[in-house]
Amino acid sequence: MRIIYGFVLSLLLITQQLAHAQNGIVVFQSDFGLKDGAVSAMKGVALGVSPTLKLFDLTHEIPAYNIWEAAYRLYQTATYYPKGTVFVSVCDPGVGTERHSVVLLTKSGHYIVTPDNGTLTLIAEQLGIQQIRQINEAINRRKNSNESYTFHGRDVYAYTAARLASRTITFEQVGPKLPNEVVRLPYQKAEYKSGVVKGTIPILDIQYGNVWTNIPKAMIEQLGVKPGEMLRVQISQNDKSLYDKPVRWVNTFGEAPVGDDMAYINSLMDFSVAVNQGNFSEKYKVFSGADWTIVVSK
Amino acid sequence: MRIIYGFVLSLLLITQQLAHAQNGIVVFQSDFGLKDGAVSAMKGVALGVSPTLKLFDLTHEIPAYNIWEAAYRLYQTATYYPKGTVFVSVCDPGVGTERHSVVLLTKSGHYIVTPDNGTLTLIAEQLGIQQIRQINEAINRRKNSNESYTFHGRDVYAYTAARLASRTITFEQVGPKLPNEVVRLPYQKAEYKSGVVKGTIPILDIQYGNVWTNIPKAMIEQLGVKPGEMLRVQISQNDKSLYDKPVRWVNTFGEAPVGDDMAYINSLMDFSVAVNQGNFSEKYKVFSGADWTIVVSK
Amino acid sequence: MRIIYGFVLSLLLITQQLAHAQNGIVVFQSDFGLKDGAVSAMKGVALGVSPTLKLFDLTHEIPAYNIWEAAYRLYQTATYYPKGTVFVSVCDPGVGTERHSVVLLTKSGHYIVTPDNGTLTLIAEQLGIQQIRQINEAINRRKNSNESYTFHGRDVYAYTAARLASRTITFEQVGPKLPNEVVRLPYQKAEYKSGVVKGTIPILDIQYGNVWTNIPKAMIEQLGVKPGEMLRVQISQNDKSLYDKPVRWVNTFGEAPVGDDMAYINSLMDFSVAVNQGNFSEKYKVFSGADWTIVVSK
Repeated sequence: MRIIYGFVLSLLLITQQLAHAQNGIVVFQSDFGLKDGAVSAMKGVALGVSPTLKLFDLTHEIPAYNIWEAAYRLYQTATYYPKGTVFVSVCDPGVGTERHSVVLLTKSGHYIVTPDNGTLTLIAEQLGIQQIRQINEAINRRKNSNESYTFHGRDVYAYTAARLASRTITFEQVGPKLPNEVVRLPYQKAEYKSGVVKGTIPILDIQYGNVWTNIPKAMIEQLGVKPGEMLRVQISQNDKSLYDKPVRWVNTFGEAPVGDDMAYINSLMDFSVAVNQGNFSEKYKVFSGADWTIVVSK
Repeated sequence: MRIIYGFVLSLLLITQQLAHAQNGIVVFQSDFGLKDGAVSAMKGVALGVSPTLKLFDLTHEIPAYNIWEAAYRLYQTATYYPKGTVFVSVCDPGVGTERHSVVLLTKSGHYIVTPDNGTLTLIAEQLGIQQIRQINEAINRRKNSNESYTFHGRDVYAYTAARLASRTITFEQVGPKLPNEVVRLPYQKAEYKSGVVKGTIPILDIQYGNVWTNIPKAMIEQLGVKPGEMLRVQISQNDKSLYDKPVRWVNTFGEAPVGDDMAYINSLMDFSVAVNQGNFSEKYKVFSGADWTIVVSK
Repeated sequence: MRIIYGFVLSLLLITQQLAHAQNGIVVFQSDFGLKDGAVSAMKGVALGVSPTLKLFDLTHEIPAYNIWEAAYRLYQTATYYPKGTVFVSVCDPGVGTERHSVVLLTKSGHYIVTPDNGTLTLIAEQLGIQQIRQINEAINRRKNSNESYTFHGRDVYAYTAARLASRTITFEQVGPKLPNEVVRLPYQKAEYKSGVVKGTIPILDIQYGNVWTNIPKAMIEQLGVKPGEMLRVQISQNDKSLYDKPVRWVNTFGEAPVGDDMAYINSLMDFSVAVNQGNFSEKYKVFSGADWTIVVSK
């Protein structure tokens, strides 16, 4: 009986730790695409560390070298995974330069393993920085990979993420603590000023051609409008105007006639515009990036 | 000893239930594409419900808003998964309108979680309707997602599928029972009439450019021909003829010379035409849809 | 106590066997693409054999019928998975012809289930042939699939791989032993001769447009150069020269100015050329295949 009792006690202790720690889930993101074996090699390395890990993908279709989009996809997705999930993000145009290889633990309990090159810009703001550690590559590097200089995703990031997620190492054993700061890509935040909201287009909802902005729902509400009412939407690239129309703010796609322009709050609770069952981006030649401005007023 | 005996008995009971119930496998399909975080967010939500679920993909490359193709891919695939598998299909151009959100239990023991917008047309015929329940969103909706109107895939369908697959809820707890009917997309069935078989092209085998029809093998056999013999194949769009040739019916690709037109029975046991190691669709400008007709005779 | 003792002993025995045998991991590769249900159907069949299998992907974007690329992707990836992993590779333009369906056990302990049509060319050289068995389709074929002639990936390969990986069958039960030979695609090996290294371009690093060669690092070192020094690189297709320049050999991308041509050792330890953060292939119209030659000298 004592053996069984001890066993149950151990189980309880393990369960308790689980509530605050890594959960065995690893989620991979990269700009590698899916046409070759690079993503699969990262997963193989992780399974070599522990075959019981649960491996998932965020996306591997980040456009090559596009750190901003890697940052946005983490912001779009990480929060929907349980606490204790370990993310690996490899968009690493500067592989082999002096950027730090780090693991960020967010205040929400998510881990992100990545080169600190701007990829953490949005998620650090969104989820908060609990602690950052630099990966000690003397320990946390795939065996016999010292002569490989160009695939840190496989040799360092996937390997370290797997060790962390499987509790082969603790967060402390990742490497030395860094200051609570990440490399940030500059970007314009949305602002409200005397009846006008001004924001940018950080990204397109590319599959449908919808235009997402960085303007949160609450800021639109400051205009004193409600779903069902009209808004004036102006979009320009640098100073060239590409769109200036009254648009109805609806709750969801089904409320707008097919083919009509519409404004709505997207799945991240940010202001967006679309053509219902059409492609706004293509129709009006509106794209995303730091040079795009969107202005919303009554 | 009694403790061990009781434990073994419990295991046996669980195993017995497993034979008729959800098996912990969830398979996702959508028109989201893989370029952003939408598919991954659905999986994160499912893992938040139960980290032991086994998550797989059917395809996420359904063309945007193409409910017919979503219906076809379910028909092509679901039956190869074990009984008790839960499918989530999100091709939902009418998100936020009055279409029902449902779970179909097929006679074969598969579950499909989807908006009832035509997606179930083919699978309801193929596998039979055991029972349909409407999702009660008062209960089966991700916490704090009430203000999100545009991503039911994440907030309702993935969430409900995960709860069902993990047995957090029973099928009955999905919501109220509906009549055994689904919304059906209209389509022309294949028919045999005095030595002539007439069907449509529901879909292309897009990777290779092969042309699949909705004519079952048995109907071709009614023509009194056997593999190795010639068939006359006529293909037209609306009333415009695009192809009219004698074609040899072979069992498999290896039996036709490379570059030759050939007819065969595809992996779903339906009549198909191809250019061996070529691209029939591209060569003859033959595509798929309700306006395409294929006529086969001796 | 004796029961518990026996239980622990069984666990130990199982663990010991695991060290040398199949590990429950199956990795799928094909030229099917991800737009339809074909890949998913293979996984469904595997889960029907055993729901506890762990299923992963290598790539499904092998260009249709391109056996060489299928061979290369196995070479690029298999070695990063743990011993005992079962790979399924289905690039099978000759489905239904007399090519053998085989399982190769490499000297490194990896299994590859595939038509023996050249797919094994590189991995047999890289990892060595321990034993090859022909799949006995009388036993190792999905039930009721005898009338399906065109989807061996689902009916034979995925099914057999799942049975092998789940230890439903032993390697011996795959079928009869074949001689230790595989069908090999002809290709030119790299060679060093009096200060000049000559190789080919087996593949592009397609996502970034980098050009990979089949010249191992050690052969470049025979030229008596070291990272940091200049090399003369000449590239031609058949006899037409497309590139002839001095290029600096660097360890990693961060060491070259953005936009500069650079030479480096890639993640497979082979010589490669790139434009840092650019696209070498596009810029110089250099592609891959048997008709491409690369010559490197001081």
